[in-house]
Amino acid sequence: MAQTAVKVYGWAVSPFVARALLCLEEAGVDYELVPMSREAGDHIRPDFLARNPFAQVPVLEDGDLTLFESRAIARHVLRKHKPELLVADGSPEAAAMVDVWLEVEAHQHHPPTGAIMVQCILTPLLGGVRDQAVVDENVAKLKKVLAVYEARLSASRYLAGESLTLADLSHFPMTRYFMDTEYAALVEELPHVKAWWDELNARPAARKVTEHAVNAAKLWSQEKAEQQ
Amino acid sequence: MAQTAVKVYGWAVSPFVARALLCLEEAGVDYELVPMSREAGDHIRPDFLARNPFAQVPVLEDGDLTLFESRAIARHVLRKHKPELLVADGSPEAAAMVDVWLEVEAHQHHPPTGAIMVQCILTPLLGGVRDQAVVDENVAKLKKVLAVYEARLSASRYLAGESLTLADLSHFPMTRYFMDTEYAALVEELPHVKAWWDELNARPAARKVTEHAVNAAKLWSQEKAEQQ
Repeated sequence: MAQTAVKVYGWAVSPFVARALLCLEEAGVDYELVPMSREAGDHIRPDFLARNPFAQVPVLEDGDLTLFESRAIARHVLRKHKPELLVADGSPEAAAMVDVWLEVEAHQHHPPTGAIMVQCILTPLLGGVRDQAVVDENVAKLKKVLAVYEARLSASRYLAGESLTLADLSHFPMTRYFMDTEYAALVEELPHVKAWWDELNARPAARKVTEHAVNAAKLWSQEKAEQQ
Repeated sequence: MAQTAVKVYGWAVSPFVARALLCLEEAGVDYELVPMSREAGDHIRPDFLARNPFAQVPVLEDGDLTLFESRAIARHVLRKHKPELLVADGSPEAAAMVDVWLEVEAHQHHPPTGAIMVQCILTPLLGGVRDQAVVDENVAKLKKVLAVYEARLSASRYLAGESLTLADLSHFPMTRYFMDTEYAALVEELPHVKAWWDELNARPAARKVTEHAVNAAKLWSQEKAEQQ
């Protein structure tokens, strides 16, 4: 019996789905992206809720294992296929630093970056008007966070130390959108953060994931245009 | 040379500090809680910012290693001293389920529980008036989340499977506060969630951490009263 490829359920424009895909690409794992439509409500159908009762993408199916939450999926893929990206040099100390900077991504970096992305990209795309007060508040927060990143990346080449790990990769999907906003200068004016981002963004795995997302966005726009 | 005990910097009333202490207690690790005062601004002093540039507690010092972000500290303590609480039976599948439910704690359970705690306990304690609209919105969210927990805990004894792990423990510190609000019934009316919570809350490590927090809160109230 042929081995079934890993399945990822979701839409490629989602930065959460992109986090899962990036790890699969980095690890060189064959996968199938099972397309879903948020607008059609695919995420609240019973068959999907059986996979993730929280109704969120991505879901990863790997044999009998069904996982959700993008950062847990990322850990699983790398633990199984490319552990050096999860535990760096394999010492407990290095693994701890990866965990620290993964948590920093989730709790310090993601919230303001995500809020700016939603206001500046997603809201207008869905026909809404952005709330500039929300943008300003989060730009101020992100500036402080990025100042810490600049100091950190001046002291070590990557966030968790001298080698690239999931702690770095996990920043890719949301930062990619952020860099399309007029606030990209926040990254560009910090030399170490900029160099780190440029390197991350140039990785072949990152290019592949971006391609997926751009194609999905184009398809979505075409469908929208045809409906009008 | 005597081994220096692990140091935890923070205030014991913080649920984030409590997460670190709970893991240390569960693992039977000697530690020293270095007292700090938020009101005195200890978290924004240069010596503390050198430990955590994000100015948050807890910080853990373990030999030469300085860690922040409570969930990363929790992982480190258990990886080093009680790995079965982090990787369950040690299989990649079990470890993945621990990761999934740790992320669920952070991104599904914590936000509404924390918001209710802040409005119902912290805000009045600091002399403010709670915003009932915020409470209501988060109670509605938490109800949906706890319905998923009830289903999960009907199918497996603990969140990540048949053995207790960090995925369960990580819920303790915020839920302890939540159970002191008038919304505790949300947990009490769900038989499997209630049994899970009662077991968690009765653990000797949990009792110790609660004792720390209750003593710290008493001390704080006394100091407040003397100042008035």
